[in-house]
Amino acid sequence: MGFRVPEEEIKEKIKRIQKKLQENDMDALFVVQRVDLFYFTGTAQNGYLYIPAEGEPLLMIKKYYPRAREESPIKDIIEITSIRNAFKYIYGYYGRMPKRIGMEFDVMPVREFFFYDQQVFYEQECADASHLIHEVRMIKSEWEIEQMEKAAELSHLTFQYIRENLRPGYTEMEFAGMVETFARRHGHGGQLRIRDYKAEGYPWHILSGKSGGKVGLLDAPTSGEGTSPAFPCGAGHKIIERDEPIMIDFGTMLNGFHCDETRMFAIGSMPKKALDAYKATLDIQHYVLENVKPGITMDELFQLSLKKAHELKCMNEFLGPPGCKVSFIGHGIGLELVEQPIIAMGQDVELKPGMIFALEPKMVFKDEFAAGIESVFLVTENGYRLISKTPAEVFVV
Amino acid sequence: MGFRVPEEEIKEKIKRIQKKLQENDMDALFVVQRVDLFYFTGTAQNGYLYIPAEGEPLLMIKKYYPRAREESPIKDIIEITSIRNAFKYIYGYYGRMPKRIGMEFDVMPVREFFFYDQQVFYEQECADASHLIHEVRMIKSEWEIEQMEKAAELSHLTFQYIRENLRPGYTEMEFAGMVETFARRHGHGGQLRIRDYKAEGYPWHILSGKSGGKVGLLDAPTSGEGTSPAFPCGAGHKIIERDEPIMIDFGTMLNGFHCDETRMFAIGSMPKKALDAYKATLDIQHYVLENVKPGITMDELFQLSLKKAHELKCMNEFLGPPGCKVSFIGHGIGLELVEQPIIAMGQDVELKPGMIFALEPKMVFKDEFAAGIESVFLVTENGYRLISKTPAEVFVV
Repeated sequence: MGFRVPEEEIKEKIKRIQKKLQENDMDALFVVQRVDLFYFTGTAQNGYLYIPAEGEPLLMIKKYYPRAREESPIKDIIEITSIRNAFKYIYGYYGRMPKRIGMEFDVMPVREFFFYDQQVFYEQECADASHLIHEVRMIKSEWEIEQMEKAAELSHLTFQYIRENLRPGYTEMEFAGMVETFARRHGHGGQLRIRDYKAEGYPWHILSGKSGGKVGLLDAPTSGEGTSPAFPCGAGHKIIERDEPIMIDFGTMLNGFHCDETRMFAIGSMPKKALDAYKATLDIQHYVLENVKPGITMDELFQLSLKKAHELKCMNEFLGPPGCKVSFIGHGIGLELVEQPIIAMGQDVELKPGMIFALEPKMVFKDEFAAGIESVFLVTENGYRLISKTPAEVFVV
Repeated sequence: MGFRVPEEEIKEKIKRIQKKLQENDMDALFVVQRVDLFYFTGTAQNGYLYIPAEGEPLLMIKKYYPRAREESPIKDIIEITSIRNAFKYIYGYYGRMPKRIGMEFDVMPVREFFFYDQQVFYEQECADASHLIHEVRMIKSEWEIEQMEKAAELSHLTFQYIRENLRPGYTEMEFAGMVETFARRHGHGGQLRIRDYKAEGYPWHILSGKSGGKVGLLDAPTSGEGTSPAFPCGAGHKIIERDEPIMIDFGTMLNGFHCDETRMFAIGSMPKKALDAYKATLDIQHYVLENVKPGITMDELFQLSLKKAHELKCMNEFLGPPGCKVSFIGHGIGLELVEQPIIAMGQDVELKPGMIFALEPKMVFKDEFAAGIESVFLVTENGYRLISKTPAEVFVV
């Protein structure tokens, strides 16, 4: 038997969301999205999870029941043919229906919502519960922290592979393929998960030289060239060359858990301008991390990064070129590459122990290159602990 | 300058959707999803497209205007800071607002819809226009057919690579990585696009031996093992061995256009049972293709596949093992891996010239292996033409 989510994990998560449901006058939560399903059940099979504000959850599986049964510690799992009959299943199990039912309004498409609201739960009030799910998910358990550490070990191993195999002559996309092949042999799941339907997660953000200086559609300092106007971000067809700064932002997914790290590479030599820029981002990262502790807000951390960037006189390139700057320096990470909360301007959410973030101060020299670092850290009772294992070095190979 | 969508393409697509808008009493279409944006504009930069039922479209770009300008033949492109001000931009440009505005209800999340419906277009009636978009997109232009041919050439090249490089000892996921690395060097965009928020497109559906016999969450005959319960489909960590049937269903994406082909491989020898099963699916494919012509319905094609499977006495395994059978044998394909229409039971949509499908009759021997073929074809005035270039052979290497 391979990887399984322990029963205690699932119980605790259900308990935590039930508390939120009660506090928010919701009688139940109806979960449809694959990652949320996996989070609350341990299985990602095709199904629906009903969590009452009190009592046992009910997992309804369309396909494939035997695998859901084997994977999930949830006690009550039933096989269903169509969610059209949700009333029958839920009423049949609980003997009553909820009045107010929470749903994932941040991902559920309108058409599907109308189906639930008008045909399935037409006597219920359907309300947005996605923020409650995010609030629960943003605090990681000890077991989840262990999983994140394992993903970070795979990321570290992959960066060692990069260091040993980076050569001039590969295209960015081809080298990304080699790196991913290595990572997959060691457990990488291939895909990265992003909640936003407009975003597309991918592991191949390998930007060599000028590619790093390309601004684009992403809400990130760098977008890269991508492979065509149809997919205009990430690695492209540019050939990796000697003596240029290469920014490798590699996303790992292991057993559903993500790691997200960025390191600078060069073949032969790293141009001084890029090295200085990298050092500035490293200083900013250290400065922000020194101030990490429960209670400080996202906005305060973001402002600290600006303060340090001003001190270092790198505000022109920090967060992107003038006119194209992003307003964040980090993001929550877990079963999705980008989770709540975001370390961003104006965000008043406070750090709490158990939160895990990817912190990524970056600089972009437009049409020249990008430089920066990204590491994953955990908020502890007194400060922080690095989850990342990859040394904060510049790798000149 | 690399790949660009020609101006005539965009003009024709806008004209076709405008006709649909007029026929359906919609005064405008508001496009937010990335693939639809690319379809109607030639750029996938972060933005919003407003298409009035008559007149010129207006492309509003949040990020990154210079790239959108360079990529898109749309004449009127403006740079915007927030779509909150859509009224200002649209009224400012057209001097009036629409009464009834079409939106992509099949992909737009509820929360975003409420924002548009209650805050941005609160004086407008917002209606579902996703079916209209699908109706336009399902008929491919000559230029689109050329792009699909190019994707098919890359797919063919990739299957040659597979033939030359398949060896025992790789894990499925590792070999998939090698194959993708090759394909990316030749233009593959890395990702496959699937519209359904619950589905996750990936190119690595490589199922060796028993992996092919694993039923799972996918609405497909085969799901494979995947890498963990968090991502329980596609290639897994199983090591590819000699003398087992290996089903490789590889998805290609080139300049946004997809190809989707399946071929059977074996190292050393192909077990007779698998070879016979493959031949049956090939017969079914031929039989269905012989009957392809404008006017025949999706359901009729599906029923023909059943008829042939009965004749061949393979109904037990056809479409999946008993109790887990899918009810389709093919799907539209283009800028998304799965497009409308679906060649499925009960679907009364008729074939029309210009439609392109991936046809995939498959058989699953539970816990043993999967066998089948998948090729892409175009509906012509009189019948069909294969877009696929890969020979319909069993590759024993």
